[in-house]
Amino acid sequence: MERSYIETLQWRHLRYDRWTDDQGDIPRGTVSWQGRLLYGYPRIGRILNLRVGLDEQFGGAFWVEEKVDGFNVRIARLGEDVVAFTRGGFLCPFTTDRLPDLMPMDIFAEAPDLVLCAEVAGPESPYAEASPPYVQEDVRLFVFDMMRLGQPGFLPQRQVYELADAHGLPMVERLGSWRADDSERIAEMLARLDAEGKEGAVFKAVDGSRRIKYTTAHASLEDIAVAAPQLNDFSAEYYIQRVLRLALFLDEQGKQVDADLERQLGAAFLEGLEASIEQLRAHGRVFHPYSCRFRSERAAREMMDHLVRLSGKRVNVRIHGLEREGGFWRLSFERQPPVMTGLLSHLLKGGELFD
Amino acid sequence: MERSYIETLQWRHLRYDRWTDDQGDIPRGTVSWQGRLLYGYPRIGRILNLRVGLDEQFGGAFWVEEKVDGFNVRIARLGEDVVAFTRGGFLCPFTTDRLPDLMPMDIFAEAPDLVLCAEVAGPESPYAEASPPYVQEDVRLFVFDMMRLGQPGFLPQRQVYELADAHGLPMVERLGSWRADDSERIAEMLARLDAEGKEGAVFKAVDGSRRIKYTTAHASLEDIAVAAPQLNDFSAEYYIQRVLRLALFLDEQGKQVDADLERQLGAAFLEGLEASIEQLRAHGRVFHPYSCRFRSERAAREMMDHLVRLSGKRVNVRIHGLEREGGFWRLSFERQPPVMTGLLSHLLKGGELFD
Repeated sequence: MERSYIETLQWRHLRYDRWTDDQGDIPRGTVSWQGRLLYGYPRIGRILNLRVGLDEQFGGAFWVEEKVDGFNVRIARLGEDVVAFTRGGFLCPFTTDRLPDLMPMDIFAEAPDLVLCAEVAGPESPYAEASPPYVQEDVRLFVFDMMRLGQPGFLPQRQVYELADAHGLPMVERLGSWRADDSERIAEMLARLDAEGKEGAVFKAVDGSRRIKYTTAHASLEDIAVAAPQLNDFSAEYYIQRVLRLALFLDEQGKQVDADLERQLGAAFLEGLEASIEQLRAHGRVFHPYSCRFRSERAAREMMDHLVRLSGKRVNVRIHGLEREGGFWRLSFERQPPVMTGLLSHLLKGGELFD
Repeated sequence: MERSYIETLQWRHLRYDRWTDDQGDIPRGTVSWQGRLLYGYPRIGRILNLRVGLDEQFGGAFWVEEKVDGFNVRIARLGEDVVAFTRGGFLCPFTTDRLPDLMPMDIFAEAPDLVLCAEVAGPESPYAEASPPYVQEDVRLFVFDMMRLGQPGFLPQRQVYELADAHGLPMVERLGSWRADDSERIAEMLARLDAEGKEGAVFKAVDGSRRIKYTTAHASLEDIAVAAPQLNDFSAEYYIQRVLRLALFLDEQGKQVDADLERQLGAAFLEGLEASIEQLRAHGRVFHPYSCRFRSERAAREMMDHLVRLSGKRVNVRIHGLEREGGFWRLSFERQPPVMTGLLSHLLKGGELFD
């Protein structure tokens, strides 16, 4: 039977299926291996007004945690292998290779059906271009949720904290348990996270009934700045959503007409665009360089294949090199945003647009 | 025979057809009256790089004219009536009523098949919200092209200038005849137009073969500022196109990393959004007030009907009043952007978004 929402993939000796789309209760990114389901990480709703929003969304107590700006992985033991899957349900050769550097692995000996949900973040990520200010090099991993193989839903957060502490797992910053009545204190926490250049917070009902996210002005500005060099390769809605989030964050924090923030928003758009215009003049293309470390050459080559396969028609990947460096292999490559390269090239040649 | 791209409309005793879509060589907005065609105003391509673009687009001499930021009308004599049609091919009760205030009408006695293409602009326009800095009150009319009833294409520009001068027609600023070799001088002209708060320039080949437009940084910023209070009622692409135009204008003018311009771009987005958030809190809705003058009460009532009909599902129009004021009738109304009103209301109540 042909099921158009399931794709079968292979990594080394592991053969797995990934859900390419939501299908009933099974979200996109779900993975099936030897008949066991590793559920996809669900979409989390966002509020744009904190004080009213927490009151509206939560009747009881909720945990607050820092939201880290990186890429989302689910880590699980499949037979003898501990592997990491991306949000989309692809086995990530990079994260899988680097796991022993990023976390203690003994937890999977004790709890073989555990699934760790984590953010991988840092300046040497092969995917994201933003990076938290406190990750100065390479990448780090931050656990924020746990699931079990074959079961939908998350473990209770208290159990997550206990397991993480017992095994020394690196976690996102825990900001405690609060109620909607505490929203003034929480708004102050968010102002602090914003000032520290952090992405935002996730709120998780202690009874497990719901979770919601809220992001800082910094995150909105950073998202725009990171995407602007590839302006038209992102949807226009991407930017406009972030402008709206920014305006509502400022409103919430009582920061009206802030000339410095206005300048930051303008700079987020214009500085990246200017850099791309200069790149196109100097090199004939727009590109963003990446560099990341691997333990094994084999994994680096698998990642190259993975990147090329992912890029499809949308992004062009060009590999620059794979070289031994200290105890690692360093993979250097670039991504070329095809729409932006084509559009800027047309315009700088004096081409006309009908818009 | 049913033709789905033609709509029959009536204004007083005039019955006319409008083309709702392009159909072969006949553009959207074309009007047919008693078997005679008033051709739609064609779309004009835009260049985003001036120096290279003029060289690429024009082999020979071209006229340069100021591009005025208002709404486009075509004015024609249909039997005993001189009437104005919008770009979309609707008879505009406002412009038609006000024509004798805006231009000398005797030209239509001498040349009854003449069609004037003009921009109507000013702070008391019923459509546009931007306004040129040199129109301090009410509206003014600026002719920039001429056609003939029943004939596609434009009159040669030299003839346009002669007819306009002979009849004292108000025109857009004429900036002379130039060639691509003069692009440095033209770039200086554009810098001057930008500093004066003008929208840009239109370039028209002297041999009539093509025309192209180019807009200033001021126009991009103004477009964003005017739309931002109704952020999501405009397409996200609207904003992103203007951000790109702005970046390329700055590149062309050699203005790199200009902190003041960055602040202006940020302010264009944020100040309007902040105003809408405050409106929603204070009044429960987002709205923009309009006020315009009519010579006759009948025309004002026709305009009210026209606005309500145009608004459809997309924009809600609320009439505030129609009152005698000096020699005029003053119509006051507001437009409510429905998407923005709904979205801000949801978010300020603490509602969640999945984006």
